[in-house]
Amino acid sequence: MAKVKVSRKAHFNAAHRLYHKDWSDEKNAAIFGKCSNPNYHGHNYELIVSVAGEIDPETGFVMDMKVLKDLIKLEVEEALDHKNLNVEVAEFKIINPTAENIAVYIFNKLRPHIVAANELEVTLYETPRNFVTYKG
Amino acid sequence: MAKVKVSRKAHFNAAHRLYHKDWSDEKNAAIFGKCSNPNYHGHNYELIVSVAGEIDPETGFVMDMKVLKDLIKLEVEEALDHKNLNVEVAEFKIINPTAENIAVYIFNKLRPHIVAANELEVTLYETPRNFVTYKG
Amino acid sequence: MAKVKVSRKAHFNAAHRLYHKDWSDEKNAAIFGKCSNPNYHGHNYELIVSVAGEIDPETGFVMDMKVLKDLIKLEVEEALDHKNLNVEVAEFKIINPTAENIAVYIFNKLRPHIVAANELEVTLYETPRNFVTYKG
Amino acid sequence: MAKVKVSRKAHFNAAHRLYHKDWSDEKNAAIFGKCSNPNYHGHNYELIVSVAGEIDPETGFVMDMKVLKDLIKLEVEEALDHKNLNVEVAEFKIINPTAENIAVYIFNKLRPHIVAANELEVTLYETPRNFVTYKG
Amino acid sequence: MAKVKVSRKAHFNAAHRLYHKDWSDEKNAAIFGKCSNPNYHGHNYELIVSVAGEIDPETGFVMDMKVLKDLIKLEVEEALDHKNLNVEVAEFKIINPTAENIAVYIFNKLRPHIVAANELEVTLYETPRNFVTYKG
Amino acid sequence: MAKVKVSRKAHFNAAHRLYHKDWSDEKNAAIFGKCSNPNYHGHNYELIVSVAGEIDPETGFVMDMKVLKDLIKLEVEEALDHKNLNVEVAEFKIINPTAENIAVYIFNKLRPHIVAANELEVTLYETPRNFVTYKG
Repeated sequence: MAKVKVSRKAHFNAAHRLYHKDWSDEKNAAIFGKCSNPNYHGHNYELIVSVAGEIDPETGFVMDMKVLKDLIKLEVEEALDHKNLNVEVAEFKIINPTAENIAVYIFNKLRPHIVAANELEVTLYETPRNFVTYKG
Repeated sequence: MAKVKVSRKAHFNAAHRLYHKDWSDEKNAAIFGKCSNPNYHGHNYELIVSVAGEIDPETGFVMDMKVLKDLIKLEVEEALDHKNLNVEVAEFKIINPTAENIAVYIFNKLRPHIVAANELEVTLYETPRNFVTYKG
Repeated sequence: MAKVKVSRKAHFNAAHRLYHKDWSDEKNAAIFGKCSNPNYHGHNYELIVSVAGEIDPETGFVMDMKVLKDLIKLEVEEALDHKNLNVEVAEFKIINPTAENIAVYIFNKLRPHIVAANELEVTLYETPRNFVTYKG
Repeated sequence: MAKVKVSRKAHFNAAHRLYHKDWSDEKNAAIFGKCSNPNYHGHNYELIVSVAGEIDPETGFVMDMKVLKDLIKLEVEEALDHKNLNVEVAEFKIINPTAENIAVYIFNKLRPHIVAANELEVTLYETPRNFVTYKG
Repeated sequence: MAKVKVSRKAHFNAAHRLYHKDWSDEKNAAIFGKCSNPNYHGHNYELIVSVAGEIDPETGFVMDMKVLKDLIKLEVEEALDHKNLNVEVAEFKIINPTAENIAVYIFNKLRPHIVAANELEVTLYETPRNFVTYKG
Repeated sequence: MAKVKVSRKAHFNAAHRLYHKDWSDEKNAAIFGKCSNPNYHGHNYELIVSVAGEIDPETGFVMDMKVLKDLIKLEVEEALDHKNLNVEVAEFKIINPTAENIAVYIFNKLRPHIVAANELEVTLYETPRNFVTYKG
């Protein structure tokens, strides 16, 4: 059967600061520059979630995009949209909310909800000029 | 030799409905929602065709983009642009014109015209938020 | 007070054909070309709705974008999204659903819901390459 | 002489919350919803600054884009990029940092540096879907 | 009748240098910087041509977009695409090919071909970050 | 450890002509068409540089985007921005400056500066419709 990758775009916005919890504010500033401003800054994150698998011969879908849209809303947007990532998201009280770590977090939240035989890929734009991709 | 992937963007627009020919309108509506409107809806499809292969040392091209542009026009745009996919394209009288199936159809139309040693990849945007990729 | 124009993007997709009800299919084809295909074609319409007025000193808003988003959903998307414009929208059984006429239709549906002192402007992209603007 | 409008794009990102200083957190939440999260959220702001005037017959410029680029950097990016608008920008301790008010703030910072005979216009995208325009 | 502005996007690419014919290369370099490189540099110019007028009640068009597309091809693309503006376009042997001056040139070439009662507007992107607008 | 691909966008503009040094102008014109105009044409090149590797558990970065941004500026923009590629870049006096060959050139300039264990990928847009990708 033909294997196709289907992709859905979504978005959320959030405040964060780059911050290593075991370092002083001075060391954080030295390593992360203005991205470590203790008062936070923020981004419009643009997200692409891709699922690769065989086309279901009945529906013609790899995965129903409406289902994927609702899954992203429930698992990602509810958790991250209009939030302060460092303060309000448990994982990012411990690990640094870089684009890399946020992409891994999103992948891990979505993976249990995707058919096991299908591959999952997450691309996260922190700005229109910086983005990351994670496939597990 | 260096192996490079070259890509060309194109576009067409068309009407379609998601529809399984062996199901009732009611079952089609239950599965496909408003995408199965019997009066059809439509899209501006944006297409990216990519060909990966070695650079020809004479021309510096993997494939002449003018040749690829004309091939897409002849094989894809002539067949699909400003058409009703369910009514006017033989394949989609039988199979459901989902983005997945349209991408496979485009791949199969282009594949015989691409040098056998080169790889072909088709990415089709049904909307700016939904898209699919097929590599055969 | 400062006068500011606020804008909100939305989208819908639909099937249509360009068609003058008093002309034969032949004359429609001669004037409108492939855009008059009797089996319809379709588009992803991208819509920008703008409202210009004074900033409310209490809220800092010209108009709450959530209210405008919901208004566009109710008045425009419910009426046009995933529809066949010629068949399912009363106005376009009579007038030709060109981008120009659709923009005027959207303007007229929204105008009664916008504060009278504020100006309304509608920009409608029929494709990424063709668009129209109407201010009443 | 021909009058031309020249435009330059720039960007910055920042944290903010919508907040009326004389209201309780409850009233702020009732009016501004999740945009008033006391822990802040943030955006990638995309900015277009336009200057309209006559073409200088010597240079062929209305205004040298390098000069405009540097002016935006000095007056806007230095003040707002990677900042918490409510906490770190004096104006937004008092007025609400809505897109409308930020656009007026940027206009007022740039206006003294633009040739008096020329017109200034500021367009600010808070997200790719919400934006505002201010011309003074 | 309703007055609507219709817009069509097109593109061309060209080489140029910013250059005042009465100045030395040194003075040109002092004023225009690297944009005056005597060996030329170049751009992908993106063009938006807009025509504002009343909707024709027969066709529903302000202007047939196919006619406008062909007019842009004939008058603008044939003259400028894949050209060295300073060397191969008569006007730019004399005046400096800044974005401002190229927009005026395009306006002047198109104006005689647009219905006199309609307004013409030209927007020219020299880069995705720099653009100009001219309305005559 | 999680392996993530991080990407950074940059841009430069340049003049070039497609040209095989051992062919006559006539043969160059026959093979490359208007792209071989002896007076040159030009492009706004948009560049995406991607680095794939493990996330550093201290910083949360695969690679600091500020470092990557500065590296692209030093190695690519300084060499190519506002240049005539055929005349001013040693490599392209000998090999043809097609998008394919420019991507390989950029890859080769960046590769020694990227941690050996990490993978490098270069995507180069010659126009918004033509682009190439090279991974070594």
